[in-house]
Amino acid sequence: MTEPTTLADLPLREDLRDEHPYGAPQLDVPVVLNVNENPYPVAPQIVADIAAAVAQAAAGLNRYPDREFLDLRADLAAFLRTESGADLAPEQVWAANGSNEVMLHVLQAFGGPGRTALSFAPTYSMYPEYARDTLTTWVTGHRETDFTIDLDHAREQIRLHRPSVVLLTSPNNPTGTALPLATVEAVLEAAGNAVVVVDEAYGEFRRTGTPSALELLPRYGNLAVSRTMSKAFSLAGARVGYLAASTAFVDALRIVRLPYHLSAVTQATARAALKHSATLLSTVDELRTRRDETVVWLRGNGFEVAESDANFVLFGRFEDRHAVWQGLLDRGVLIRETGPAGWLRVTVGTADEMQQFRTALQEVVGQQ
Amino acid sequence: MTEPTTLADLPLREDLRDEHPYGAPQLDVPVVLNVNENPYPVAPQIVADIAAAVAQAAAGLNRYPDREFLDLRADLAAFLRTESGADLAPEQVWAANGSNEVMLHVLQAFGGPGRTALSFAPTYSMYPEYARDTLTTWVTGHRETDFTIDLDHAREQIRLHRPSVVLLTSPNNPTGTALPLATVEAVLEAAGNAVVVVDEAYGEFRRTGTPSALELLPRYGNLAVSRTMSKAFSLAGARVGYLAASTAFVDALRIVRLPYHLSAVTQATARAALKHSATLLSTVDELRTRRDETVVWLRGNGFEVAESDANFVLFGRFEDRHAVWQGLLDRGVLIRETGPAGWLRVTVGTADEMQQFRTALQEVVGQQ
Repeated sequence: MTEPTTLADLPLREDLRDEHPYGAPQLDVPVVLNVNENPYPVAPQIVADIAAAVAQAAAGLNRYPDREFLDLRADLAAFLRTESGADLAPEQVWAANGSNEVMLHVLQAFGGPGRTALSFAPTYSMYPEYARDTLTTWVTGHRETDFTIDLDHAREQIRLHRPSVVLLTSPNNPTGTALPLATVEAVLEAAGNAVVVVDEAYGEFRRTGTPSALELLPRYGNLAVSRTMSKAFSLAGARVGYLAASTAFVDALRIVRLPYHLSAVTQATARAALKHSATLLSTVDELRTRRDETVVWLRGNGFEVAESDANFVLFGRFEDRHAVWQGLLDRGVLIRETGPAGWLRVTVGTADEMQQFRTALQEVVGQQ
Repeated sequence: MTEPTTLADLPLREDLRDEHPYGAPQLDVPVVLNVNENPYPVAPQIVADIAAAVAQAAAGLNRYPDREFLDLRADLAAFLRTESGADLAPEQVWAANGSNEVMLHVLQAFGGPGRTALSFAPTYSMYPEYARDTLTTWVTGHRETDFTIDLDHAREQIRLHRPSVVLLTSPNNPTGTALPLATVEAVLEAAGNAVVVVDEAYGEFRRTGTPSALELLPRYGNLAVSRTMSKAFSLAGARVGYLAASTAFVDALRIVRLPYHLSAVTQATARAALKHSATLLSTVDELRTRRDETVVWLRGNGFEVAESDANFVLFGRFEDRHAVWQGLLDRGVLIRETGPAGWLRVTVGTADEMQQFRTALQEVVGQQ
């Protein structure tokens, strides 16, 4: 070929022709509040322990990693025991390179052509990508105006679509809404032998008294609860997502995972961090308090705000949300233009970052 | 549910019902020569540099990693320039958690339902799994008795199956056979706009004078050459595979990759190791020499041996290869029971390991 090859010259899957790589803009601005990261870096002592653990692992990097990583799975089970009182064997825990790879494993195992995954919108914008990647039909019911899920509507959607996978997000992204266990149970009862995944990526930020679906695991072998080290643990860069379920559920994921998907370096990093889970999660209370303050402040300034059990707040509503987003960005504050029309999502950052957000928002809205 | 859930209770994809998690046995024995690892650990100075790089990355782990990892892609391009004289822009390089994730990306982009991937058997036993994971039809032509590919047969298979992806493995696993560039070019000419991937996971071990398909990249926008840091670089545990292709080819992979698939820790580890590529690859010459000696010794002892440009040797043939494999294992030497009937594959290890292999093999064969 003498002409440069273009994508049109290559046999890309037809349904991918109009697609673009997923992801929020990675912009270099002073205040980054757009991807629900924890604003607090890992403490120096923990960094040192991670480096020491990686050095130890690196001495054996010529060998493939432990394919079953049961030590890491045991550490994750122990953490869930401390965090939510869950009683789990290591074989009931699974992990991968981020929750998104965990979800891919779930849909590779239980989705596929001729099968349907059901969720309730507005919800996490990556889910349709996992469905697309696994050729699973993607359908959504709706959430109510307060972003909860109506039980009759949920049952009706399950009856209508007969999904093999139901995804419930709690706290929901981008709305922050936690689901009562009654909703999860109603879905489980209606779902028959379909698998039900409760995505608790933001679970550690839930308000006091809000339960985790981990409580339901002993009663439902078709239930999985997914978590991540990206948010509360301040480890987005390490890419460690995980889930807890019945051993049979996890065994299904073991069939579809690529062998050695979790590197020895990732395993060492995660295990070193889990030794310090109490310290790493010490930022959670502060972020929850600031989240609640942000909600109060936004409401006090006349904005509509969704209840939040996460480390972000959905607020609005704006006739031209893009103009507000751009106005904030012009002032060095990057938030996320996502969710239902008219709403914007801001991650809870440091006290200083939230002050800059407030000042910028007042300026932008004052000008409109 | 009161009874424990079993896999039969869950809606596993029907075509996965009889599948098992892929992977060679991970056994704790003195001499491990079964998964083509480099027997030499990463040197202490390089371990220290990796740990320092990870410590630097760990201080920012609360943030998501660079989704495009162009710094790592530039380092990989620079390595290929040194190793094979390839002139590549960073945008022509792609990486993922092991070659197997790279291949998954290729088949997610260019395979799928109603599409076919073609290779020539015997070849790498993971390929059908990638096809299964992406719902791509998997077909194989055959290799000749010396494990080369006949050009007329290759053209005929392409005409017959009209694949959208052709996988050529050179040096081939498990046979060790390198393909002449004439074979790759003939396949490219016959393949039309199908993508052709030459898997050079063992490329650095090729004998002097054996070319790399990287040479063909400037002329074929539908060609990709995949490599890995698992073998020559002694970094199997780090899970870094990569490929080089046209920018358009790489852009297609960017659409299907999960966002942030490559952690900041993995990026830091790979970049630190690439700074020491000359040192890390200094074991390659020694392993090539020992490989050639192993071939000579096996032939001298009456075995049939396939020509090898890799860090392993396929030898045989045995009426009951499993008995030979077991006999070696009983003597603390783990090799791989794989490839065509009657053959066994041994990885080239240290001098001492190969001596133990020779002694054990003579004992086992002498007893039969």
